[in-house]
Amino acid sequence: MSDTLLIRNVRPAGGAATDVLVRDGRIAAIGAGANGGDTSCDAGGRLMIPGLVEAHTHLDKSFWGMGWHKHTAGPALIDKIETERRNRREFGIDADRQSGRLVAQMVKMGTTHIRSHVDIDTETGLAGIEGVMAMRERLKDVIDVEIVAFAQSGLLIRPGTLELVDQAMAMGAEVVGGLDPCAVDRDPKGHLDAIFGLAQKYGRPLDIHLHERGEMGAFSMDLILERIRALGMQGKVAISHAFCLGMPDVDHARRLIDELAKERVALVTTAPASSPAPAVMACLKAGIVIAGGSDGVRDSWNPYGMGDMLERATLVGLRNNFRRDEEMELALDVCTYQGAKVMEIADYGVAVGCKADFVILPGETVCEAIVERPADRTVVKRGRIVARHGELTQPIA
Amino acid sequence: MSDTLLIRNVRPAGGAATDVLVRDGRIAAIGAGANGGDTSCDAGGRLMIPGLVEAHTHLDKSFWGMGWHKHTAGPALIDKIETERRNRREFGIDADRQSGRLVAQMVKMGTTHIRSHVDIDTETGLAGIEGVMAMRERLKDVIDVEIVAFAQSGLLIRPGTLELVDQAMAMGAEVVGGLDPCAVDRDPKGHLDAIFGLAQKYGRPLDIHLHERGEMGAFSMDLILERIRALGMQGKVAISHAFCLGMPDVDHARRLIDELAKERVALVTTAPASSPAPAVMACLKAGIVIAGGSDGVRDSWNPYGMGDMLERATLVGLRNNFRRDEEMELALDVCTYQGAKVMEIADYGVAVGCKADFVILPGETVCEAIVERPADRTVVKRGRIVARHGELTQPIA
Repeated sequence: MSDTLLIRNVRPAGGAATDVLVRDGRIAAIGAGANGGDTSCDAGGRLMIPGLVEAHTHLDKSFWGMGWHKHTAGPALIDKIETERRNRREFGIDADRQSGRLVAQMVKMGTTHIRSHVDIDTETGLAGIEGVMAMRERLKDVIDVEIVAFAQSGLLIRPGTLELVDQAMAMGAEVVGGLDPCAVDRDPKGHLDAIFGLAQKYGRPLDIHLHERGEMGAFSMDLILERIRALGMQGKVAISHAFCLGMPDVDHARRLIDELAKERVALVTTAPASSPAPAVMACLKAGIVIAGGSDGVRDSWNPYGMGDMLERATLVGLRNNFRRDEEMELALDVCTYQGAKVMEIADYGVAVGCKADFVILPGETVCEAIVERPADRTVVKRGRIVARHGELTQPIA
Repeated sequence: MSDTLLIRNVRPAGGAATDVLVRDGRIAAIGAGANGGDTSCDAGGRLMIPGLVEAHTHLDKSFWGMGWHKHTAGPALIDKIETERRNRREFGIDADRQSGRLVAQMVKMGTTHIRSHVDIDTETGLAGIEGVMAMRERLKDVIDVEIVAFAQSGLLIRPGTLELVDQAMAMGAEVVGGLDPCAVDRDPKGHLDAIFGLAQKYGRPLDIHLHERGEMGAFSMDLILERIRALGMQGKVAISHAFCLGMPDVDHARRLIDELAKERVALVTTAPASSPAPAVMACLKAGIVIAGGSDGVRDSWNPYGMGDMLERATLVGLRNNFRRDEEMELALDVCTYQGAKVMEIADYGVAVGCKADFVILPGETVCEAIVERPADRTVVKRGRIVARHGELTQPIA
């Protein structure tokens, strides 16, 4: 396999056509007439965008490739949690196999980096973590996966779970997960002290699912902010969903946004159409990093999803009423550069010296690519072509 | 060309595989072993759904096929109206050509019936109406188009417009259009008396764009209901958008829904992610017909859109938090049967005796088809295959 790759006639970020030379897994040169590649390909004037960043998903429990499963969960959070544990047993969801299948789809769609929450509970123990770890070792040449040790069924209400999360961190999970300190664990102080304690013990960041709406979510967010201040964890905490920032009391939401910005708390959003949600523009203007994620894809929670972060960019745009080109470009930023910031990906982007993780796809402009989401994507990971015109170059999973 | 078509091994609405015989533009028989077709095709166990119904779009002003145009309109309604009239001149939007291009895309995606609002104003006069009428005559074998005579720039605030709308109805437009009686025309009584007057004069139904939110929209809706009662126009009025039904005062919204049901007012929604919107389930439960539409596709208002009503079903599902299979099926119902009711399409559906307007596409279940929106669609219109596996069988436009 060649160490260098020359891509001719490609338009980074929709700009003028140029040539891009990739060497040793990095972008070595950008400019017309760049040369030196053992392998060259003509991109035919297609766009080049950085690899898509999936900053919030659940690889371990997707039904991807298992046929259609009727969605039977009730509307409440706890219904989904209970249904999911039952489905995992009944359907035989294997975390290694299923995460690999979903990764294959995501790679094909142009995702180069994934943060996956992985379930830990007293039934499954660490099987999910082990499965996703085995998958990422197997697929390390085509994807970067960061694992969040996540007590989906509750951390304190199911005794023994905290110890399992502790073990997952010892095994090498990168991020400590949290979940609705009031609504699920019924003990916000206990929950937050526990997860911040683990984050301190392992010197790792936190990513907290916060579905709690309105004043309850704002209360949990306040408690999170207090702990960040007390422990000096600025820049080390992400809050996923953060529905409470879409609360009716906009002054309160505004105050929370200012505090999140001050303590450098990042947000991760799916841009949900049916829930209150953080307004992307307001967050960006306040200086908050806000990334995008699919959340579950075809699982017990969510029957939707193609594992496509370009579709997520469309949904971010629609949810935030982004119509002007510069607004739509922000929607893609949420699914690329913003995600890279949340995951602290070094040397990310389309510039000389950056890691060669990028996507080449049709489109007159970046906005057109967001709207059309063409299947014809060529994906480069670590300088190697892993998908060409929408097909994986080698089988994955 | 053959008058009969036998489709073998197809699954209507995701049910058991069977055969469907089409004769003289209608479904003549459904059942294993149906025969008699001059032409037969094996659907390979694919799904069969009725033709998608686009109940609210603007064919006349799409940029489809004209390259990417930077979106420059400001956030207010009036910005979009003014920008659009300027763009129409500057970009050379020809209603005949552009409506044909968009119809070609919509047909490929499986749409068999379209209700299109068509702009009428003192600048363009009736050119848009004439253009769309010419297009629909040209393409009458592949699509049914219903025209709404629509004063996009205001009916009364631009003198002369009402007379033009009157002429459009005389020319054969099927539906009288209305637009934000308070917010745009600044004269709700004047606006509504005028459009109801035209509806009475021509014995045609009404379709009123109502973007007005909260109490203002509720006020306009009240005035509409009064006129329906006074004129006995039950079942003859549709309100598009109806954002006010997503108003914070849920009791007020509930009372409006009950009144709309009583007067048999239909609704048409895009299921917008960034606006208040009528809740589909609440409307259906109240007995209201609620159809779906793309609204503008790639035009001065809206840079998004693939002209795909299956994508609209996804967006209806996401907006309404439809996750259970039976809820997702309702999302498709909004984009098929509900639209057929709004447009009063006779003999619509997948049953013996119905017009042979349907789509064959991959998918284990209807829900999977909604989620995946496969490009591989075979579309039958008036008993003829107009698109096969995602490609038009003959050039359109």
